[in-house]
Amino acid sequence: MKNVPRLLLIVLLLLCAGPGAWAARVDTVAIASPAMQKTYKAAVVLPDSYAKNKKAAYPVLYLLHGAFGHFSNWLAKTPDKSLVHRLADQYNLIIVLPEGETFSFYLDSPIDKGSQFETYLTQDVIGKIDATYRTVRRREGRVISGLSMGGHGALYLSGRHPELFAAAGSMSGALDLSTANRRLTPEEVKFRQNIFAPILGTEEANPQLYAANSVMMMADKLRANGLPLIIDCGVDDGLIDINRELHRRLVYNHTPHDYAERPGAHTWEYWQNALPYHLLFFSNVLRANGVLVP
Amino acid sequence: MKNVPRLLLIVLLLLCAGPGAWAARVDTVAIASPAMQKTYKAAVVLPDSYAKNKKAAYPVLYLLHGAFGHFSNWLAKTPDKSLVHRLADQYNLIIVLPEGETFSFYLDSPIDKGSQFETYLTQDVIGKIDATYRTVRRREGRVISGLSMGGHGALYLSGRHPELFAAAGSMSGALDLSTANRRLTPEEVKFRQNIFAPILGTEEANPQLYAANSVMMMADKLRANGLPLIIDCGVDDGLIDINRELHRRLVYNHTPHDYAERPGAHTWEYWQNALPYHLLFFSNVLRANGVLVP
Amino acid sequence: MKNVPRLLLIVLLLLCAGPGAWAARVDTVAIASPAMQKTYKAAVVLPDSYAKNKKAAYPVLYLLHGAFGHFSNWLAKTPDKSLVHRLADQYNLIIVLPEGETFSFYLDSPIDKGSQFETYLTQDVIGKIDATYRTVRRREGRVISGLSMGGHGALYLSGRHPELFAAAGSMSGALDLSTANRRLTPEEVKFRQNIFAPILGTEEANPQLYAANSVMMMADKLRANGLPLIIDCGVDDGLIDINRELHRRLVYNHTPHDYAERPGAHTWEYWQNALPYHLLFFSNVLRANGVLVP
Amino acid sequence: MKNVPRLLLIVLLLLCAGPGAWAARVDTVAIASPAMQKTYKAAVVLPDSYAKNKKAAYPVLYLLHGAFGHFSNWLAKTPDKSLVHRLADQYNLIIVLPEGETFSFYLDSPIDKGSQFETYLTQDVIGKIDATYRTVRRREGRVISGLSMGGHGALYLSGRHPELFAAAGSMSGALDLSTANRRLTPEEVKFRQNIFAPILGTEEANPQLYAANSVMMMADKLRANGLPLIIDCGVDDGLIDINRELHRRLVYNHTPHDYAERPGAHTWEYWQNALPYHLLFFSNVLRANGVLVP
Repeated sequence: MKNVPRLLLIVLLLLCAGPGAWAARVDTVAIASPAMQKTYKAAVVLPDSYAKNKKAAYPVLYLLHGAFGHFSNWLAKTPDKSLVHRLADQYNLIIVLPEGETFSFYLDSPIDKGSQFETYLTQDVIGKIDATYRTVRRREGRVISGLSMGGHGALYLSGRHPELFAAAGSMSGALDLSTANRRLTPEEVKFRQNIFAPILGTEEANPQLYAANSVMMMADKLRANGLPLIIDCGVDDGLIDINRELHRRLVYNHTPHDYAERPGAHTWEYWQNALPYHLLFFSNVLRANGVLVP
Repeated sequence: MKNVPRLLLIVLLLLCAGPGAWAARVDTVAIASPAMQKTYKAAVVLPDSYAKNKKAAYPVLYLLHGAFGHFSNWLAKTPDKSLVHRLADQYNLIIVLPEGETFSFYLDSPIDKGSQFETYLTQDVIGKIDATYRTVRRREGRVISGLSMGGHGALYLSGRHPELFAAAGSMSGALDLSTANRRLTPEEVKFRQNIFAPILGTEEANPQLYAANSVMMMADKLRANGLPLIIDCGVDDGLIDINRELHRRLVYNHTPHDYAERPGAHTWEYWQNALPYHLLFFSNVLRANGVLVP
Repeated sequence: MKNVPRLLLIVLLLLCAGPGAWAARVDTVAIASPAMQKTYKAAVVLPDSYAKNKKAAYPVLYLLHGAFGHFSNWLAKTPDKSLVHRLADQYNLIIVLPEGETFSFYLDSPIDKGSQFETYLTQDVIGKIDATYRTVRRREGRVISGLSMGGHGALYLSGRHPELFAAAGSMSGALDLSTANRRLTPEEVKFRQNIFAPILGTEEANPQLYAANSVMMMADKLRANGLPLIIDCGVDDGLIDINRELHRRLVYNHTPHDYAERPGAHTWEYWQNALPYHLLFFSNVLRANGVLVP
Repeated sequence: MKNVPRLLLIVLLLLCAGPGAWAARVDTVAIASPAMQKTYKAAVVLPDSYAKNKKAAYPVLYLLHGAFGHFSNWLAKTPDKSLVHRLADQYNLIIVLPEGETFSFYLDSPIDKGSQFETYLTQDVIGKIDATYRTVRRREGRVISGLSMGGHGALYLSGRHPELFAAAGSMSGALDLSTANRRLTPEEVKFRQNIFAPILGTEEANPQLYAANSVMMMADKLRANGLPLIIDCGVDDGLIDINRELHRRLVYNHTPHDYAERPGAHTWEYWQNALPYHLLFFSNVLRANGVLVP
């Protein structure tokens, strides 16, 4: 009995401690892809309350990494290494960091059977997480966000599978796969062509594939879906024009969405700053859905 | 001694309880204006920790109301009546809600000695608060925001007194006093002229007064000051064009600022949604300034 | 022989006389539509030189009218009734004013066999004009423009038939058929639905038809075609947002085009002012194509 | 007598001949500057009709050159060397090409008594032209335009002297003198600082001088003046953002103006294409003013 107040004191201290204090646990989970015949790891950040609150079902944020990155980026690359843990604790939700490979763009490649990340994310990852943890196993309890390629992935996957997610976000999203729409140097064009060709073929040969898989061309689908959206980009980011363009299209076709521009470029400082705004946004959606663990 | 754990339990419960749970205390303070020879009330929302943490100096958010409003609006008009209390508790800061009268626009009227709100806010209110409470008595610990007329007031006062504030915000700000710059019906023009004339004279006779007192014309001053700024507006708000214009001017002249557009109009639902983003923004500034109470 | 100098003097006087002086001839031609089993009139404005310069082949401007209008509008409704005649004389080209009915939007209706204006314009009208007059019978000698519904028609027809036209223009174009993308009153929505339903069915039932037939969705096609384009709109026109949106999309995807905003609304004063800029633009294209009659 | 028809034939041929045919005469006139104690040359392009139509008073277009240029640029640098001559003939107006030196920006330098081009243009040049030629000696008959630095000059001089001009234009205008507002490399910043310092001092020491002399800051003055304005820029011009910004400010404050974006960059091909649109615009103003020679 004497230990109870002490435990409470500790918990209270942790809750009040601000940046640096967190209790979240991180699992590394192997998630198989039958389609790709591979197994990728994912990190699962469980809020401190998860272990104690044994009857509660937790909402899940799927948080995607960018190109040339991997599943652990959000834990390893933010200047404040405890950011994701603290946000999981603060909002009482599970944050899943799945693998998207160096350049999958989170789509099912029509030409490379080894790059089927739309299927992997929407079936294998969600299935495994829901089977392994006490999650809210319906769209009302799932949200998805990401940075750069992962921002595209979050809007793309939720845009094509609105039955799976309650809301979606994009930070510094690479929202247009087309090279033709960008003002690039010949070197940049070649570089992009080389990395996109393995999953979509060349743009000259398959322009319709590039368009069909770009969030930029999904404005009417996003409106029809009606999912709450949060989109932001740094004003010094090379992708700012693309993000402004999608914002204008969503204003033009009257799709409700949060849009923000902030100081900063395509850096982890920017994403560390942006992520808490996404969590605030998602927590409002999850609370309205009645699935936030008190 | 037996009561301690019980108290902690209660506190813990309150801290974990989400919307609705808060412990903040609200004082109503009379603050005199020597210039106007009047005394106005202000509400002071103290975080729960204030009473216990007796050695800590607290940062202060000055939060301004809109036209045709009064100091208590932020406590009385949000759909969730506990919003301001909870935010004070969550971020451990004092929130001061001062009086700005129905239509002062928070400036010192050159023609009405009874409307001197720039002086009132920057001298009388800040002086009284710093004299009455354990505050951080320097710019690093003061931030200011507001809605509509109060959004203008927050950017205007901090723009002209950067030595007093560490950051500023505006929600749905009425950032341009000029009627000429707006697409209004003749009735709306007449209405605006009638309410502005007592503090600035007619715009025909004093266009330079309208320009000199409009935040819209202060973009270069805002850049020179270098204060962190957060500005947002609802896409269905009649003031959206004005806010977009200031955003463009700040992008154009490279003034770092956060800018957001969200669903919604000139309503308390919008401001209830917007305020927590301002607090998140300000908390980052205050933390970087080393004045946030842990 | 003695009459020659006198004739020359008269011609010279006419050429120098400015607004009001013109010699162009107007034919009214019946042009049958096999698809619609109807015959519509078109006005053909021949430049003064056409009768004398009997060996020259003339370029043709197809100039389309707006909704609720008819083929003769461009002759009857401009404040200056000689505008089209003078421009035909000034630039030495034939201006054809075809019929587009009150609300065909210049497309082939998939549900009304009596409204097949894409076929009518691109086959019947061009065929009849080329068979009847000394025209440049290839794309290098044909340009197309129009106002409002006709602005849409000009970009739509040339966008889908780039093999027929050398350049295209739009004044105050109604460039988006979708009602969903516009901020309209319920009465306006109902009104638009009633006039679009006969040719496209309801938008609820056939959103893809509305999108597929809107110039707004053809930005990538316009880029691929590479036709010189001139697009303008008055800043007080209810269609200005739509025109700005297409401009941004064409800037975004790097489609070369001339874009202008001018004072004015959806009025014949605006179109009278705009048309000479289109002729100047087209004359540059036709001159570069080597088909302008000296 | 027998020669008369032959002469008419020749004239007629010339009038009909399109690019290449023109009869305009070019004078080179020395115009003294008492303030600068220097004399600069100007080119005066007289339309063919000027010599014959001895009783008519002619309107004048003042056409300014860009930085690092000189008065003869508009005659020497357009790909089509007859452009200015033909436009003078076509519209029956005098085109004056005054000197603006390599980097005067057409203002009266407060620190260099040898760079007083506002006074030079508005007093010496106009005075000399009106004293030497049969001009319309009042604002209704004077228009002004220019490229780059000259676009700034045209809007700046007409904006500060609306009593002198009936309309003004800018092509690819360098409408903002401030280096701070532009995204430049350190080399570009240094380069600009070096060329501006002799006429305005450094921007650090005199930011208010840079602002006070920039067209960008004159939006409200332009509105108050009410002069018809035509402003354009190429989408690939490094000055496009500045031109878009002024356009937005003029849309924002409801200043009537023509604004166009066209393919092209900061090149003589662009200006050759743009100038005829300016002449068409100005001819409408001059015709409405009743001063166009028929």
